[in-house]
This record gives sequence, structure tokens and C-alpha cells, in this order.
Amino acid sequence: MRSKCPLLLTLCALLVFCACDSQRVKQENPATMNQDTIVLALPQETGATLLDALKKRASVREYSAQPLSQDQLAGVLWAAAGMNRENGKLTAPSALALYPITVYAVTAEGIYRYNSADHLLQRVASGDLRTTTGLQDFVYSAPLNLVYVADLNVYDPEKYPQISREKATVLAGLDAAGAAENVNLYAAATGLGSVTRGSYPTADFLQAAKLDPERYTVVLAQTIGIPAQ
Amino acid sequence: MRSKCPLLLTLCALLVFCACDSQRVKQENPATMNQDTIVLALPQETGATLLDALKKRASVREYSAQPLSQDQLAGVLWAAAGMNRENGKLTAPSALALYPITVYAVTAEGIYRYNSADHLLQRVASGDLRTTTGLQDFVYSAPLNLVYVADLNVYDPEKYPQISREKATVLAGLDAAGAAENVNLYAAATGLGSVTRGSYPTADFLQAAKLDPERYTVVLAQTIGIPAQ
Repeated sequence: MRSKCPLLLTLCALLVFCACDSQRVKQENPATMNQDTIVLALPQETGATLLDALKKRASVREYSAQPLSQDQLAGVLWAAAGMNRENGKLTAPSALALYPITVYAVTAEGIYRYNSADHLLQRVASGDLRTTTGLQDFVYSAPLNLVYVADLNVYDPEKYPQISREKATVLAGLDAAGAAENVNLYAAATGLGSVTRGSYPTADFLQAAKLDPERYTVVLAQTIGIPAQ
Repeated sequence: MRSKCPLLLTLCALLVFCACDSQRVKQENPATMNQDTIVLALPQETGATLLDALKKRASVREYSAQPLSQDQLAGVLWAAAGMNRENGKLTAPSALALYPITVYAVTAEGIYRYNSADHLLQRVASGDLRTTTGLQDFVYSAPLNLVYVADLNVYDPEKYPQISREKATVLAGLDAAGAAENVNLYAAATGLGSVTRGSYPTADFLQAAKLDPERYTVVLAQTIGIPAQ
């Protein structure tokens, strides 16, 4: 036994070092948000299974203030509204294939519009505007909030006379809920927490994001981050 | 080369046999629907990754008439509304945690109510009632349709005076859309096809399922099956 101990100890130390190191790298690689355009990396296969994600899916409302890493931010946005086919269609379905939703990412550094085609974020407002994304305290300190904004103009009244503005908002909400569930599963699969939210100050957000309230409305919101210990 | 050929041929034949056999087993193990209570197996880990499911997620509208296997049926229902925690909460979130949705599975043999707590189906009507689940031809021959029914009584007007019947229907629809997206990803991950649908004859379905239209309403539907070749 004696002769094996040093080797065992070395191995243990190495394991502990690797574990700490991987944690350290993760923490030292936060997404750099202080830019007008953030090019996102395509999500990498981690081997996390769908079944495991479904088993772990749960709503989280307590978060660490720690920012998401570049990979986490990129993965969340691609899960929500990534372009997964050459025909331009997205990871989540859309009623009548009209894709009215634009996903806005809101962090302490600003509001960013997600561009699915180019898989990048474009900043539309600077500063900490998280209070415009929800009505619950945890929203204001969580590292990432997503706001699902519908462009009601996609429901052309000449083509779809039966779709009122109210009905359009409902349809767009269904689209957003599918996208948000993709994010919930992505979060569950990667050790993040998330919660789909139905409460948000629509007028405040549209003003902060410089969006015309006659044309756009908020249909859903979501918070994502590392769960508080 | 000559001496290796017989071995190579044997190996090839074996591979082909195994492939056919696995296909054959799958086809010979359809869910037995002609029962009043169908106890479902818990879904087994196949190793299918979430990222792969997100990459493959697409709406399918052409299906083989082949019934789903027992495992496929069980997996679809568990993804939609399986109980994934001891506190009784489900794979998909619900606004205000009121869980108004009951999932109905509709096949050529009848309409079945999914019981999340016991992970089983209970038949509520016999016969081919697939026409009550949608307004598109492919729905009527696809092996499985899910109908997401909301119990509007869960939104107690004394507790939630601000939630009108219309608002309740919208909230329940958001819940259903999350559940349906879980199914879309499960289908994508396991070689099935699926499509979330917003069109259905609500009154016809409620009548067929013997549900009170004052209390219940349909908020979403979905078709699942093996994609047509």
C-alpha cells in the first residue's frame, strides 16, 4: 500500500487541480458585453442528453450575479432562435411560419438584439436596463434576461384578415413559449438555471429598446443565470 | 483478398441482419392501444443529445401510418407532461404554477387522457376520432395527435380577479406551447417527426372527449409520427 500512496496522492491532487482549473477557466471567460456587435460562437456538443435536460428542467428564481461565459451566452441564444436549417428556419417553430419574434438579450451592459441569420448580438441601448424586463426583484440582478418581442406587422391584415392584433399577440406568444422552452432545456442541460416569465413592463422595455409600440409588443420574458448556491 | 472475402461477406450479412432485425423489433412492438388503461414505461436514456435535437427540430406534415412503439408513445407523453420532480411539477413550466393543461393522446383507437402522476393513459372515448383534433388532412391519418386542453377553473377568479377567461386561455396556451416544444425536441432526438398546430375544432373535440365547454377549452394541438419516406 505504502508504495502506491504517493501516486494516488499525485493523482488526487491532479484531479482537484483539473476540477478547480476548469471552474477557473469558466469564470474567467465571461462574455464581453461592452461592444456594439458581439459575434457568437456556434454551440459545441457537450454530450448533454435531451432526457437529462427534461429530467432537470425546473424554474429557478435565485441567481448568482456572475455573468454568463461567452459559450453559455451563445448557446442560450442559439437554442432560443438559432437558424438550424439552410432555408432560414429556426430551432423553435412559428405559427404560419411568419417568425414574428425577435429575441433581445438584456445584461448589466445594455440591450442587444439577436440576429439569427448571422448568430450575433447588436447593442440597441447601453447601460443597466434590466428593470425594463420584469417586475420581480431577481430579474434586476440576474446576469441575463431575454425579452421576446413580436413584430405585429408580419401578420399582414390583407393576407390574414381573420388575425386581429389580439390574436396576433397570442400566436406570437405561442412561438415565444416554444423558443423559451428550448432555452429552459439548454439551461437545464448545461448547469444553468432559467425561468420563463409572463410579467414585464412592456411600455418601458419598448421605449428602452427604441421600438415603436404601434408595431411591436412584448409577449414573453425569461431569466437565465447560474443558480445561487 | 480472396481468403478474406467470405469473412467480409459474413460480417456484412450480419450487419444487414442486425439492422433489419432492430427495425423489425421496432415495428413489431407497437403500443397496444385497445385498452382502457395503458401503463407507460419510463423513458430510457438513448444518449440522444439536446444539441442534436435542437439542430434537427423541424415541423413535419407528412407521416407514415405506422403506429408508434410503446417506448415512443411513453417518451412523447413524458416529454410533454411527465412529472420530473418529487414535488409533482412537470417537464414544462406553468404560469403561476397552476398547471391547467391536460394532454390527450388521440390515435385510431380512441382518445386517452394522460395522467402525469401515474404516467399512464386512460381511454375516455373509443374509435377513430382523429378528425376532432385538427383541420388538416395529414392529421387524420397520422398515428398520434396530442390535444392540449386547459381547465379554466384553475384560475380561481377570487384569487386571480385580473385573469379573465380570455387571459386564462392565453396563459394556458403558453404552458401548452412549452410542453409541445419538449415533444418536438423529443421527436427530433428519436427519429420521429412532429408539428405544433394552432388549428383544431374545439367544440368537436370537447364533445368527443366528454368535456364541459364551459370549463375546458383546447389551446394547442400537435401531430407526431414516423416521417413519410
